Amino acid sequence: MTESVVDLVDRARAGEARAIARLISMVEDGSPHLPEMLAALRGGGSAYVVGVTGAPGVGKSTATNALVTAYRERGQRVAVLAVDPSSPFTGGALLGDRIRMQEHAGDSGVYIRSMASRGQLGGLAAATQQAVRVLESAGFDVVLVETVGVGQSEVDVAATADATVVLLAPGMGDGIQAAKAGILEIGDILCVNKADRDGAANTVREVRNMLQLGGDRDGWRPVVVTSVAAQGQVDDLVAALDERRVWLDEGDHLAMRRRQRARGEVLALALGGVRARLEEQMLGEGAADVHAVAEGSMTPYEAAARLAAEDDRMGA
Amino acid sequence: MTESVVDLVDRARAGEARAIARLISMVEDGSPHLPEMLAALRGGGSAYVVGVTGAPGVGKSTATNALVTAYRERGQRVAVLAVDPSSPFTGGALLGDRIRMQEHAGDSGVYIRSMASRGQLGGLAAATQQAVRVLESAGFDVVLVETVGVGQSEVDVAATADATVVLLAPGMGDGIQAAKAGILEIGDILCVNKADRDGAANTVREVRNMLQLGGDRDGWRPVVVTSVAAQGQVDDLVAALDERRVWLDEGDHLAMRRRQRARGEVLALALGGVRARLEEQMLGEGAADVHAVAEGSMTPYEAAARLAAEDDRMGA
Repeated sequence: MTESVVDLVDRARAGEARAIARLISMVEDGSPHLPEMLAALRGGGSAYVVGVTGAPGVGKSTATNALVTAYRERGQRVAVLAVDPSSPFTGGALLGDRIRMQEHAGDSGVYIRSMASRGQLGGLAAATQQAVRVLESAGFDVVLVETVGVGQSEVDVAATADATVVLLAPGMGDGIQAAKAGILEIGDILCVNKADRDGAANTVREVRNMLQLGGDRDGWRPVVVTSVAAQGQVDDLVAALDERRVWLDEGDHLAMRRRQRARGEVLALALGGVRARLEEQMLGEGAADVHAVAEGSMTPYEAAARLAAEDDRMGA
Repeated sequence: MTESVVDLVDRARAGEARAIARLISMVEDGSPHLPEMLAALRGGGSAYVVGVTGAPGVGKSTATNALVTAYRERGQRVAVLAVDPSSPFTGGALLGDRIRMQEHAGDSGVYIRSMASRGQLGGLAAATQQAVRVLESAGFDVVLVETVGVGQSEVDVAATADATVVLLAPGMGDGIQAAKAGILEIGDILCVNKADRDGAANTVREVRNMLQLGGDRDGWRPVVVTSVAAQGQVDDLVAALDERRVWLDEGDHLAMRRRQRARGEVLALALGGVRARLEEQMLGEGAADVHAVAEGSMTPYEAAARLAAEDDRMGA
């Protein structure tokens, strides 16, 4: 007998780890029961959703762990969602999970879970948002969404967070590289980790200089802090996150963020549906046009217009 | 008087740098003349398109420069397209261009250009493909497409290349991080740069071990090589690229890659058109649904279905 989705949601609401895991697996696998699940989750709790991102090697896992410890000391329930936009495999991330789990083993106020990209409808940004809804519903106060790198998909995932922390490390590259990494666009808080290393002050200075080139974003001016996560020193980071939260609670900021988030989620789902139809069409009757484009006898614009027209005809 | 697109294409075909630059700017800006431009470019030359990617700090620019020098020594004309998926600003990249230009200044067989993301129709993958067509048309033998990081957008951009090189560096993180970075999926050639540093042999071993977990891709088994790009030592990398090229020329491999590429390009353009319509709709009559999702009184699936239905109605 299969468990009903409504039953699973009820049990997740009661904080049962196994039910939470099942629901997030449904999100990861793009289960056909997702619409039902989201309907059941409606009106769930509300968490502070914090995105944590940065290039490999800056200490993301360590910083996330230190944040978990810091929030636990305050008595808050914390979930970690480790999102891997670039891989359909969870192998690596799951190994990472197991290593981390050990530290918080037996603490029912902590939930750690990785989620890989498996071509979910609406992409990983929509899936992340859905998993966050599950975790909010399960009553977590803080959800840390950890992503790898800062490409477009990380930007999309970061857009689902209330606050985005971009981690940097001294000596990881000069200002040009940091600018390329897009930190100006996505970081609400820029955190120079491994701040006990040579060059940390330089990195802080470079980041501050770069920030002066950018403006504020919806009224928030990005903040630069330092940490030594390996030694649990994340006080400044937590303080900056608190500051951001206070700011969000003022005026219309949080509602605005959540509307932006909803808009992104709805768009991703609608586009995901169209994409699936178009892909199917291109393998069927549209295949000849694709060949023509590859051989240079048709422009991609002509082929795209023909594909879209055919899709409209089918949809109508 | 504005220059005609056909005239610009003719001049780009003759190798005029200013015309090439103008055409790539049209791609970057999403010019309304793009369909006309692509029609004029039809049947242009064919280059070996090599993607170069990797996390910040691994030495991408240095390796790209060393490859330019290596191909120039063979008398081949080389273009570099530095693609920045995460930033709407070209500031950083342009500064980088200027630094690099100095080295190859006065060499008309080298063309270096950066391209930023400006919300082009079809995204940066389609734009990259279009810029590559311009450069092929201008008679370059090799086009190096350099991207930052390995997120989903880099995966998309890499999909436009005939060969993708993923650069790594010793001490940039352990095997788990490399797996997260998605190198198993996108690298045709994995190159451990800075191979004169401590830990290089370890990194090579880890990468080889990881590759044993993955299978071959369309019949190509990813290759692991080393380089010290800062000293111009990229012989093994060039040899691996040659090997890949020979493989592509055998059987149906190249034609298959180019069909995959055409399929991706057509899909991206068709979806881009749909996306623009849906976004507009969500700011107009769809805004109430978005609010309802943000407030939890409607699921994103309901809102997405309503949005898609409305779009079909309008399109038909």
